[in-house]
Amino acid sequence: MKFFLITLFIISLPLNLNTSYPSQSDEEVIRKIFDEVLTNDASYENLRYLTKQIGGRLSGSPQAAAAVEWSRQVMENYGFDTVFLQEVMVPHWVRGKKEIGRIVNSKKLGSLDVAVCALGNSVGTGSNGVLAQIVEVQNFEELKTLGEEKVRGKIVFFNRPMDPTIIQTFQAYGGAVNQRGSGPSEAAKYGAIGAIVRSVTTSSDNLPHTGSLRYTLNLPQIPAIALGTEDADLLSKLLVDDPSLQFYFETHCKMLEDVLSYNVVGQINGSEFPDEYLTVGGHLDSWDLAEGAHDDGTGCVQAIEVLRAFKTLDIQPKRSIRAVMFMNEENGLRGGRKYAELAKENNEKHLAAMESDSGGFTPKGFSIDGNEKIVKQIASWRVLFKPYHIYEFEKGGGGADISPLKAQDVTLIGFRPDSQRYFNYHHAANDTFEQVNKKELQMGAAAMTTLFYLIDKYGLN
Amino acid sequence: MKFFLITLFIISLPLNLNTSYPSQSDEEVIRKIFDEVLTNDASYENLRYLTKQIGGRLSGSPQAAAAVEWSRQVMENYGFDTVFLQEVMVPHWVRGKKEIGRIVNSKKLGSLDVAVCALGNSVGTGSNGVLAQIVEVQNFEELKTLGEEKVRGKIVFFNRPMDPTIIQTFQAYGGAVNQRGSGPSEAAKYGAIGAIVRSVTTSSDNLPHTGSLRYTLNLPQIPAIALGTEDADLLSKLLVDDPSLQFYFETHCKMLEDVLSYNVVGQINGSEFPDEYLTVGGHLDSWDLAEGAHDDGTGCVQAIEVLRAFKTLDIQPKRSIRAVMFMNEENGLRGGRKYAELAKENNEKHLAAMESDSGGFTPKGFSIDGNEKIVKQIASWRVLFKPYHIYEFEKGGGGADISPLKAQDVTLIGFRPDSQRYFNYHHAANDTFEQVNKKELQMGAAAMTTLFYLIDKYGLN
Repeated sequence: MKFFLITLFIISLPLNLNTSYPSQSDEEVIRKIFDEVLTNDASYENLRYLTKQIGGRLSGSPQAAAAVEWSRQVMENYGFDTVFLQEVMVPHWVRGKKEIGRIVNSKKLGSLDVAVCALGNSVGTGSNGVLAQIVEVQNFEELKTLGEEKVRGKIVFFNRPMDPTIIQTFQAYGGAVNQRGSGPSEAAKYGAIGAIVRSVTTSSDNLPHTGSLRYTLNLPQIPAIALGTEDADLLSKLLVDDPSLQFYFETHCKMLEDVLSYNVVGQINGSEFPDEYLTVGGHLDSWDLAEGAHDDGTGCVQAIEVLRAFKTLDIQPKRSIRAVMFMNEENGLRGGRKYAELAKENNEKHLAAMESDSGGFTPKGFSIDGNEKIVKQIASWRVLFKPYHIYEFEKGGGGADISPLKAQDVTLIGFRPDSQRYFNYHHAANDTFEQVNKKELQMGAAAMTTLFYLIDKYGLN
Repeated sequence: MKFFLITLFIISLPLNLNTSYPSQSDEEVIRKIFDEVLTNDASYENLRYLTKQIGGRLSGSPQAAAAVEWSRQVMENYGFDTVFLQEVMVPHWVRGKKEIGRIVNSKKLGSLDVAVCALGNSVGTGSNGVLAQIVEVQNFEELKTLGEEKVRGKIVFFNRPMDPTIIQTFQAYGGAVNQRGSGPSEAAKYGAIGAIVRSVTTSSDNLPHTGSLRYTLNLPQIPAIALGTEDADLLSKLLVDDPSLQFYFETHCKMLEDVLSYNVVGQINGSEFPDEYLTVGGHLDSWDLAEGAHDDGTGCVQAIEVLRAFKTLDIQPKRSIRAVMFMNEENGLRGGRKYAELAKENNEKHLAAMESDSGGFTPKGFSIDGNEKIVKQIASWRVLFKPYHIYEFEKGGGGADISPLKAQDVTLIGFRPDSQRYFNYHHAANDTFEQVNKKELQMGAAAMTTLFYLIDKYGLN
């Protein structure tokens, strides 16, 4: 019994050193945070508006501009201390009219249309399209082995699936996505005239999943498309018996001049250290094919919800906390870079930056990109999250938009929800509001608020 | 470094005492289990058949008979050592033609049809229906306070929602479901002639969620229906201004004579202790309104998958392991009772019984209904589950179908997946195959297989 009491004392000691919330234990405050977020539909209704009324909002689009103005108004209406925009020039890629994809001369099936979509940042084929034989490869080594002789004048078909045995799907995504990002330029090296990429997704269907490619300097820019997984499997099967099969595709996408856009920042001023910042964000832009619900409408509304919960519960932060809607994560990261640039220019000391860009699913925890001591400190709060079934506090990545802050020695934190469903919807037409469960979304926002409450209260030492 | 090695040794020692799998560590076997289940679509395709080809399968229905025969064949085809049926007489309740629900004389809306469904086991109103004023209550205390004077001749409307601040939704369900189970008889005590129950669900829509009621002996059996949550909110709002509003409903359900049905049991014989059993199960029956996907098609196909994984991976269990498809969980529990009765009669020593009846979502862990030592032992395996992001091993309930085994001193284990979405679909028309994510389903089956592998290998001491 004695031992038990001593243990309790030791455990509770570091959680009650601070005197700014004298009357309530951390457990009580955290319970209030969850109660507030779970009984207020704000985040869910904000997401409904962003996805249903605004919809897909690719950088440079009118919808992206609408999302900027909408999020500015939402945060103004919540009465945050400051809401402001940060100007940023963003790429302006447009898809143009609907793509055509066609297996042309299958011995078995004749001519067959399949659903395709241009990869983001791709050049278009124009009305002439691309018609050629197909070379299927699983990876760049195979492509290299085939070499120019086998590849020149053809369409390279990258068909490596995500590994279903990898538990964390973001890791499986990491193992497949180079086909989309670098595949077209790799194919161009050997004279290919087009690229087809198996959708980088966990789902088995015929929805093409887009996503950006990056052309390598000084290589020909060839047009590239994505194909749903079932059609990719079909094409692969047909090619076995029918290697001379041809494929036709037509895309009308193009890159226009950069346009002016904005990060949107809402802020609650700190009472003790107003010049220290805690930033939480998601990215406001999304692909054009869907509503951008899990990617990343959920991150945006959760970031706003963190500040709303602080304000509604009258938790006065010691440091200034910010909700940032980053612009252009999908095909440029200009917003994230601009935010870090301005933070440096303005001498804003950021204690931590958190990003929610893994979907609005049940929270599993957080990954922390910081020194060992800080990782340990944050992990020591695990016990406070246990009643909410949140267990993971590990060293790991923060997020794309906040990554440029790393150079300023900011602790980066990635919000980590359950990952099993994310890549079913990622960058495809089914990433809609309906795929988001209200309570899962709210649980995430409450967990994020809780971690910010603790970091603000105890600092990071 | 020395310290590190010693620690490792201590941790690994209790996990390698057994010699029956000499060449592979537990970590390796478990990785193989996950790889097998995650790369084989068996469980998902079985679920597709059960939900799409057979569909809703209420006890006593032709579909329930189809499900019996289907699951028998599936397990036969997998080549389990024995597959057999256990006869059990089950209640045979039928819904009859589609229910009618109508707000009759709203001052604001006039007459308005709303979607309703009869509660399971309810008597029907017949073609005359029930027409009466409504008394809304939140709980039985309120009903008692109103008393016979205010209740007689009226329809009692139970409108207490599930508490959204409770993290584990099964607990929130437990806090609301007495309105459905006992509400009608409670209302009958005070002379009510019908009962309307707010659907016990986390979703906000107009799908009525059914579920069984239990009539109290010696009280009039009054007809009862469920109403979707949005319609329940509407009705409640209307009643504020319009307390004399009337409601009409018509149901054609009735209880017929009991019919013969079956539990379906598949078995792999143990090599060392063939007379000791490890049983894993789900329930084969479902409500009639939907496909019974999460409730409890997923539990059935996962139980079968446990044995399939053992067999495919050539893991010879020391004890006999069984997959049991229990019949009639939803409105009688006759199958669960029969299984325990036969186990006793046949002197079958069950070491443990596990049930999956909480949906096919991402596994969070297991709850254990056993003595402290056994709970501790199972919790000591937590480290083996960590690579699969599974953390919860706590004392708690097993499951309805296995609960009758408790009297025989069997350790009961409840499979616990993430609970946030379950009650969106529970007992309603949207509990369909499409709501099940393949990998989440497989992760659960792999986790269940893993726990059975460990229990079989080390016993429960």
